[in-house]
Amino acid sequence: MLTYIYVIAITAEAMSGALAAGRRNMDMFGVALIAFLTALGGGTVRDILLGNYPVNWTQHPSYIYLTISAGLFTIVIARFMRHLHQLFLILDAMGLVAFTIIGCNVALSLNYNTPVVVMAGITTGIFGGILRDLMCNRTPQVLQHELYASVSLLVALLYLFLLDRQVDHDINLLASFSVGLALRLAAIRWQCSLPVFSYAPEKWQD
Amino acid sequence: MLTYIYVIAITAEAMSGALAAGRRNMDMFGVALIAFLTALGGGTVRDILLGNYPVNWTQHPSYIYLTISAGLFTIVIARFMRHLHQLFLILDAMGLVAFTIIGCNVALSLNYNTPVVVMAGITTGIFGGILRDLMCNRTPQVLQHELYASVSLLVALLYLFLLDRQVDHDINLLASFSVGLALRLAAIRWQCSLPVFSYAPEKWQD
Amino acid sequence: MLTYIYVIAITAEAMSGALAAGRRNMDMFGVALIAFLTALGGGTVRDILLGNYPVNWTQHPSYIYLTISAGLFTIVIARFMRHLHQLFLILDAMGLVAFTIIGCNVALSLNYNTPVVVMAGITTGIFGGILRDLMCNRTPQVLQHELYASVSLLVALLYLFLLDRQVDHDINLLASFSVGLALRLAAIRWQCSLPVFSYAPEKWQD
Repeated sequence: MLTYIYVIAITAEAMSGALAAGRRNMDMFGVALIAFLTALGGGTVRDILLGNYPVNWTQHPSYIYLTISAGLFTIVIARFMRHLHQLFLILDAMGLVAFTIIGCNVALSLNYNTPVVVMAGITTGIFGGILRDLMCNRTPQVLQHELYASVSLLVALLYLFLLDRQVDHDINLLASFSVGLALRLAAIRWQCSLPVFSYAPEKWQD
Repeated sequence: MLTYIYVIAITAEAMSGALAAGRRNMDMFGVALIAFLTALGGGTVRDILLGNYPVNWTQHPSYIYLTISAGLFTIVIARFMRHLHQLFLILDAMGLVAFTIIGCNVALSLNYNTPVVVMAGITTGIFGGILRDLMCNRTPQVLQHELYASVSLLVALLYLFLLDRQVDHDINLLASFSVGLALRLAAIRWQCSLPVFSYAPEKWQD
Repeated sequence: MLTYIYVIAITAEAMSGALAAGRRNMDMFGVALIAFLTALGGGTVRDILLGNYPVNWTQHPSYIYLTISAGLFTIVIARFMRHLHQLFLILDAMGLVAFTIIGCNVALSLNYNTPVVVMAGITTGIFGGILRDLMCNRTPQVLQHELYASVSLLVALLYLFLLDRQVDHDINLLASFSVGLALRLAAIRWQCSLPVFSYAPEKWQD
């Protein structure tokens, strides 16, 4: 099941990357590259951090084709994207949660300690979006808007807690996934966000 | 022959990095660092992605000295750079093509599959320029202007096609190199570019 | 001794990251992430460049907790930060020097050649600040203001020179550390900086 959701998720992420590239008037190549980076960048950063070679997508060329196609297809349907906005946010939320759980599992299989497993989950969940925003020269949105990265953190903690309690793995997956998805959608619906830290000193520079 | 072109190419890339640093009023250290990153960053990202350790330049200290020197030398000759603009574009185009072929060869030697070989070629070709632009806080130019990244893609595909057809390797190199160079220079001359995707929704945020 | 200074240094770096995140109105999660990246990002980039797996902080979860706590604690004491400005600059300078020496030692233990050892020292010293600035969408300050990255270079060179002369290691550490710290503080006090390269061509684009 996680694999199906993963495929849907990287497609949704690729499309979100393509739209961001379009806002910067990139050419088709740029759109394809940003789509690829947004969808598979989080997992790439995780694999490099953990020394998990070969990097996942290099063994699955179909993911390369899928994300690039999704990016280019977005150009065609861009005019309809606003009507798909709701659907899009749900797919993106599913991606966030699925990426997080997958990231945790990769670090677990390499016997990293719990804090690193959590970091691996979060990295997989949010770094695609961060790379997208870096490439498009804007401050990472996942660190500024409604609960997003924090949903990733909570999903990772819940998943590891249930794993530690030896809850049946399917039930664990279902629970972590549902709670994460509900939380993210609730955050969008009621515009929940973490407290923001605004720092604007008058004179000194750092 | 590829080695000679490579040395010329990293010199040209280092100079392009130094000029970008100068536009951001960086100090001499910043100029040297951006020069180094622009010239050798593409290969570094490739090596890290493919798990190809040790990273290439760590085994060739002369490349470190060369790129840093070229960056600092650029400060001295900056006032003449506009007269060298044509030459500069040609050297940069040679670099793009040479980097791409070298990147493909590295991935081939590690037995990666074809799509990953192509990605490795493109990464080597364009990521130096992308890192330069990220460090200088601007949207990557290689994804916005005349055919650049797409030349890298075409060179990689042509090179692999001729390799697959078991064309003599020297002829393959010559053909891929010439076609790529001609394409890039033609794109500059006649301002060819890929279709641009401009996306500017009125109200919603993503 | 280097370990004590290291712990103080990553705390100071984490706080500097938190302040930068506050200037971009990030939420608490963003503050924690930028704090972590600023403090441990330099060492992470070094480990990945050198293929030094597992990455250092993954084996020291306490560093993860420390840097995140320091980041969040900064939110609480932000209003007092301007009174601590002097102290802060001294801690940051200690961090720069300690990071550089530690980075050199890591590369030495992996038998890299001298230029790479120097690069590893500088990378450890300055890349945390560079990642912080990239994530906050501003041009890296360490490449623009008073002597900073160049202090890292000089410390690395001095440390390796004394090592080569087989000076007693404790004396070497003390000397490299003192000289580096003095240089950085003098640069701040008298606003020393390297010559700046300003390049602003009138018409052509690169």
